[in-house]
Amino acid sequence: MVVREKILDMVVSCFKRHGAKGLDTPAFELKEMLTEKYGEDSMLIYDLKDQGGELLSLRYDLTVPFARYLAMNKVKKMKRYHVGKVWRRESPTIVQGRYREFCQCDFDIAGQFDPMIPDAECLKIMCEILSGLQLGDFLIKVNDRRILDGIFAVCGIPESKFHAICSSIDKLDKMSWKDVRHEMVAKKGLAPEVADRIGDYVQCHGGVSLVEQMFQDSELSQNQHALEGLRDLKLLFEYLTLFGVAEKISFDLSLARGLDYYTGVIYEAVLLQTSARAGEEPLNVGSVAAGGRYDGLVGMFDPKGHKVPCVGLSIGVERIFSIVEQRMKNVGEKIRTTETEVFVATPQKNFLQERLKLIAELWDAGIKAELMYKNNPKLLTQLRYCENMGIPLMVIIGEQELKEGVIKLRSVASREEVAIKRENLVAEIQKRLSES
Amino acid sequence: MVVREKILDMVVSCFKRHGAKGLDTPAFELKEMLTEKYGEDSMLIYDLKDQGGELLSLRYDLTVPFARYLAMNKVKKMKRYHVGKVWRRESPTIVQGRYREFCQCDFDIAGQFDPMIPDAECLKIMCEILSGLQLGDFLIKVNDRRILDGIFAVCGIPESKFHAICSSIDKLDKMSWKDVRHEMVAKKGLAPEVADRIGDYVQCHGGVSLVEQMFQDSELSQNQHALEGLRDLKLLFEYLTLFGVAEKISFDLSLARGLDYYTGVIYEAVLLQTSARAGEEPLNVGSVAAGGRYDGLVGMFDPKGHKVPCVGLSIGVERIFSIVEQRMKNVGEKIRTTETEVFVATPQKNFLQERLKLIAELWDAGIKAELMYKNNPKLLTQLRYCENMGIPLMVIIGEQELKEGVIKLRSVASREEVAIKRENLVAEIQKRLSES
Repeated sequence: MVVREKILDMVVSCFKRHGAKGLDTPAFELKEMLTEKYGEDSMLIYDLKDQGGELLSLRYDLTVPFARYLAMNKVKKMKRYHVGKVWRRESPTIVQGRYREFCQCDFDIAGQFDPMIPDAECLKIMCEILSGLQLGDFLIKVNDRRILDGIFAVCGIPESKFHAICSSIDKLDKMSWKDVRHEMVAKKGLAPEVADRIGDYVQCHGGVSLVEQMFQDSELSQNQHALEGLRDLKLLFEYLTLFGVAEKISFDLSLARGLDYYTGVIYEAVLLQTSARAGEEPLNVGSVAAGGRYDGLVGMFDPKGHKVPCVGLSIGVERIFSIVEQRMKNVGEKIRTTETEVFVATPQKNFLQERLKLIAELWDAGIKAELMYKNNPKLLTQLRYCENMGIPLMVIIGEQELKEGVIKLRSVASREEVAIKRENLVAEIQKRLSES
Repeated sequence: MVVREKILDMVVSCFKRHGAKGLDTPAFELKEMLTEKYGEDSMLIYDLKDQGGELLSLRYDLTVPFARYLAMNKVKKMKRYHVGKVWRRESPTIVQGRYREFCQCDFDIAGQFDPMIPDAECLKIMCEILSGLQLGDFLIKVNDRRILDGIFAVCGIPESKFHAICSSIDKLDKMSWKDVRHEMVAKKGLAPEVADRIGDYVQCHGGVSLVEQMFQDSELSQNQHALEGLRDLKLLFEYLTLFGVAEKISFDLSLARGLDYYTGVIYEAVLLQTSARAGEEPLNVGSVAAGGRYDGLVGMFDPKGHKVPCVGLSIGVERIFSIVEQRMKNVGEKIRTTETEVFVATPQKNFLQERLKLIAELWDAGIKAELMYKNNPKLLTQLRYCENMGIPLMVIIGEQELKEGVIKLRSVASREEVAIKRENLVAEIQKRLSES
C-alpha cells in the first residue's frame, strides 16, 4: 500500500503538471451504455443483478464512462485525469499483474484541436511517468487504426471483418505470427494468401523512416485512410522530437489494440527486458501503459450524434505495482507500513493516564504518535515494537520524569536518551523530524 | 474534486498521525459474506448477476470486508485505514449528501487490548477531523449496545426483538418519539406500556453525570449487560477528559445505530445547526461520522469462530463534501479546478514548434504548464484563458524574443512583463512560485 501510494502520487502529479483536472465518474453504468464498445472483450464485463430499476454493469475501463459523461453534460472540451477501479471477469492467474479488480490511471484530452498536438502530449506524459518511476528502459509502440484499415483494405479483407482481424493482430504480443495467422484463417475465415499479405505488413517496425517508407508503398499510398494516418504519424514524430522523446517511440504495424473504439493513433508502452540478474525472478508483465485516439465514442452517447474528438492514455499501475514489488523482494528491501514518528512509552505501572495526556499533546501538534493499548505494558515490548515498526523516536515518561517536569527523548536507532523539559518537547521533536 | 481531494488528504493524514496503515480490500465480496450482517439495511445491497463462478455483491461498507480480511488472513492485531467507494441501493434524492455510490473513510483498531483505550482514540480522531475541517460546532453522541440491551431487558422486551427495536430507536434522529413509538407498537408488536417505559430511557442525554445517574437506576443496575456498558462508558469519559475532548461528547440513550454488528460502545457525530445566516440555504445533513465496537464480526467469518475484538469509525465524507460545497456556493467562493502555474503563449503565427520546445523544458523541470492546442492561437484568447483558469504566470515567445534569446514572463494578475534570459527562465519561475 505504501508503494502503491507513492506510485499513484507520482502519476497524479504528472497529470496535474499537464493541466488536467480530477474527475470521478460512477463505478457502474447502464448496461446498454457499455455494450458494443469493447469488441471481443465485452464478455468480460460484470453485470449487476436486476433488483428493480435500471440494468447496470460495472465499468470495464475509465474511457467509456468519460465519453458518456462528456455527451450527457454536453462538454466540448476538457482535460481530465481519473484514478479509479475497474472490473473485468478474468481469471486472476492468467498473466502476472492482471486481476479482476484493478486500479487504472487515465488522462484524456477532449476537444477539437489542431492535429497531433494533444496526441503528442499524451505520449510525452507516458514517457515522463515511465522515466520518473525508474522502471528501466521502455519503448512506446505507435500505430494508427486508419493505417491498419488501409492495410486490411489493400490486402482485400472485407470491411465487416476489420474489427475481428484487428483483435487477432492485437494478440501478436502474446502469440507468434504463425498462431495469429492460424486464428485468422481457421477461425475468422481469411484466405491464407490474404493472411500472408497482412503478415508482410504487420511484421514491420521502425522509426519515422518507416513512415516515409510506407508513403512509398504503391498500394497503401493510394488508400485515403492510410494516407491520413501516415501524415498524422509524420507530424506526431515531429512534435515528439521537439518534446525530446522521439527515440522512445517505435512505429509498429503489429500494434492493433483490441478495443473497438479507437479511430486514429494508438500506442502501447512496453518495458524492455534486461536479462534477469543472478537470483532474480524474470519479470514478465506485458504493456504498462497504453491509449489512443477515439473520435467517435462521445458521438455514440449523444442523442444527436455530435462528436467530440478525444485522445487519452491509461497507466497500467497494477502491473507497475507488481514490478516494483517484485524488485523490492529481489533486493530484500523492507518498507515501513506506517508513518509513525514517535512512540509514547513508560517503564512503570499505572502510567496510562500520563501517557494519554502526553500523546494527545503530540497529536494536537500534528505529530504522528502511537502507544500501547495496555494499562501496564513492559518497556522491552515497547522498545521492540519501535524497532520492528521502524519508529525513529520514543518519548518516555515515568515517576522521575513526572517529578522533574521532563520527558526522556530516545533515538531508537542510536539508543541515545536525553531529558527534555516538557514544554519544549514538541518543538524538539519537530526539530529532529525536520532534520532527518 | 479539488475540495474533495483536500478533505480526503486531511482525513488520511489524521489516520496516519494515529499510526494506521493503509489497506485496500476488494469492491465485491461473496454474497453470502454480506448477508445477515446489516439487519434491515441488507435489502440495500447491490448483487452482481450470476455470470458463472461465485455469487458476488458490492460492498455495502468497509467494515464487513475488513472483518472478513482479518479472519481469512488470521490477523489478530491491526490498525488500518481505508478510503474507498461503497454502494447502496438508495434513491439518491432522499437525504442531501446520500448517493448510491459514495466514498467512505474508515479507521479501525483490531486486537485484544485493555478496555476503552482504542475506543477513546477513535473518538479523539473524530474530534480532530471534525475540528480540523472547520465545519462548525459539533457533538458526538455516545451510547453502548449493552446498555440498550439492558434497557430492553428491564422494560420486558423479548430478546428476539432486540435488533428490531434497535432499528426503530435508530430512527429517532429523523422521526419524532411519537412516530417511533407507533412503529414499535403497530409494526413490531410491542405493548404500549413497554414502549412508554423505553421512551422514558431513550429520551435521556447528558454528560458523565448521566452515567452516574444510570448506575443509581434500581432496575438497570441489576442488569449485568447494562452494568458492563456503564462501567466502560465511565472509563471512556475518563480517557476522553485526558485527551481534552470530553466536552464534545454526549451520552445519549437514543443512539442505537441500525447495523447489527455492533456489540459495545457506539457513537455518531452530528453538526450543531447554527441558525442560517441571511441569504444562506440551511444545511441539513444528519450525521457526519459514526462508528462503534464490533467484537463478534470477525468470529462470524472465522471457520473456528475465533474472535478478534474491533472498534472503528467511518467519516461520512460525502456529506462533508456537500456541506463544504454548499458553504462555498453561499459565500460565492471560486475554486481553481487545475493547478497549472505557467501558460506558454505566443503573439505570432507559426510559433508552435518553439512553444512545444519551451513547454517541454518547463515540464521536465517539474513546472505545471499548459498551452493552446492550436497552430496559431490569438494572444487575446490565450490571455483570457489564463484569467479564467486562474493561471498566475504566462511565458511569451515571439520573433523578437527568439532573436534576443529571451522569454517574456508576465504576471497575469498585475499584467507586468519582464524579459528573462532563456537559460534563467526555469529558475526565475521556480523562485516566483515559491514566493507566492
